[in-house]
Amino acid sequence: MTDTMDIRDKLTAKRAAVDAELARILTGEPAGMYEVMRYAVGGGKRFRPLLLLAVGEALGAQRSLILPYACAVELIHSYSLVHDDLPAMDNDDVRRGKPSCHKAFGEGRALLAGDGLLTLAFEVLSRTPFDPALCSRKERACREIASAAGAEGMIKGQWLDITLAPGNPGEEAFLDLIRRKTGALIRASAVAGAVLAGAPEAALRAVDDFGESVGLAFQVRDDILDAGPSPPPTEPNAVAVFGRDGARSRLDTAVDSALRALEALPVDTGELRYLAGTLRLESGFLS
Amino acid sequence: MTDTMDIRDKLTAKRAAVDAELARILTGEPAGMYEVMRYAVGGGKRFRPLLLLAVGEALGAQRSLILPYACAVELIHSYSLVHDDLPAMDNDDVRRGKPSCHKAFGEGRALLAGDGLLTLAFEVLSRTPFDPALCSRKERACREIASAAGAEGMIKGQWLDITLAPGNPGEEAFLDLIRRKTGALIRASAVAGAVLAGAPEAALRAVDDFGESVGLAFQVRDDILDAGPSPPPTEPNAVAVFGRDGARSRLDTAVDSALRALEALPVDTGELRYLAGTLRLESGFLS
Repeated sequence: MTDTMDIRDKLTAKRAAVDAELARILTGEPAGMYEVMRYAVGGGKRFRPLLLLAVGEALGAQRSLILPYACAVELIHSYSLVHDDLPAMDNDDVRRGKPSCHKAFGEGRALLAGDGLLTLAFEVLSRTPFDPALCSRKERACREIASAAGAEGMIKGQWLDITLAPGNPGEEAFLDLIRRKTGALIRASAVAGAVLAGAPEAALRAVDDFGESVGLAFQVRDDILDAGPSPPPTEPNAVAVFGRDGARSRLDTAVDSALRALEALPVDTGELRYLAGTLRLESGFLS
Repeated sequence: MTDTMDIRDKLTAKRAAVDAELARILTGEPAGMYEVMRYAVGGGKRFRPLLLLAVGEALGAQRSLILPYACAVELIHSYSLVHDDLPAMDNDDVRRGKPSCHKAFGEGRALLAGDGLLTLAFEVLSRTPFDPALCSRKERACREIASAAGAEGMIKGQWLDITLAPGNPGEEAFLDLIRRKTGALIRASAVAGAVLAGAPEAALRAVDDFGESVGLAFQVRDDILDAGPSPPPTEPNAVAVFGRDGARSRLDTAVDSALRALEALPVDTGELRYLAGTLRLESGFLS
């Protein structure tokens, strides 16, 4: 019990560090431009940056090295929500209980704020201090993040999302879609943390497996909560594809797989087990 | 005369190398997604990549090192055009004599293709081979490009463009706008070439001055040609701000400054002088 409270305190402190650094990054002139970007980043649970920081620090990375990467993945996640909500995409009026960015500021500014957040992610990575001993790790971490955000990751996931025929796409196509659209950046967050820590290949593989399972669990959980009690939704959704019981079972299996992957890491994985466990339905997610 | 033909042949060969590499980068599955991105990148004169390659090679950089950076600046430029043309921004139906991207493929796919091109730029940079001797140069070149595309560069320029009050913004505000919106990426293209070549600080400063003047000349020239014979346009435009004669004089002065900056470089600057000279009104731009 004390252990769990201790873990929650540590994750809360990590979240505060991410929020403070994001606030610092998102301050400037003209104030109106940064206000729209801050609005878009506000209210998130910071799951991806927490994952990156928790993996990185469990494996021995310095906070100062990995914090910019943690912010970058949150900036990328935030941009994707702003653009997904636009009328040309999902046309969502509400996000995180507030008006979506374009509802609050208009489409032009929301589009631009999304572009700004995406670019800022790579600006933040490009401004990390030069260190010849860390170049190789930094380049690999950047590559993991850029690939997850990119043409074979989130962009392709979103493309599949808007071009798939209505109805049930089938299990394989659905899993491919969510692996790219949601899973890739979650997986990359975990892997980038391990890469920056200089983890050996066996640990990297374990973190990769962990991140893959966490990413799947994250999206399936989201779909189950989105689907409500009944009837199942008609757009691509884990409940529509696997059925309600099937989706719950997939979620449990994915969390179990994530926890099993952690057993290969010879370090204290308390925070990572907590983060994975919080994805179970009966758990209050990062509450 | 032979010299000029020789220079044009070399620039034409560089352009072919850029186009071939862009075609390679923009090939994949699903074919429809890459088709939209290729459409958006098609038809450009490749001014920014040519500048990067010409600066880099004049100062001794290997083609294989700098070609990815040349492609990245063109991908960033292309994304900015796609998003600028969207109805929420300038609502332009035509680009480079063809239907704009959203007119050809719809708003959702154009928005996503723009996001894809921007992300792909950083993916391309993140996939360059690791070389401990070049890390520092590569990080600095990335930083130049990311900053130019970012919150203090193109994003702020576009923000100023959509939020400035109608009418003449005044010379200072107008110059700040075009320096960010257009000038920053052109300047960064030149500087990135020099950085990758490992140019000494004096040469970097000369290239920086050169890039700054070329960026200004580029936008003023565009505005003069856009403005047509009469009357002057009402939106922020060099002809509206400086008058027709004033804009022509600014353009000439900027090209002269660019050529003067090159005098500090102790290398063959023939291609760079040609690129700058082609911005004069009487010249056929890269024709």
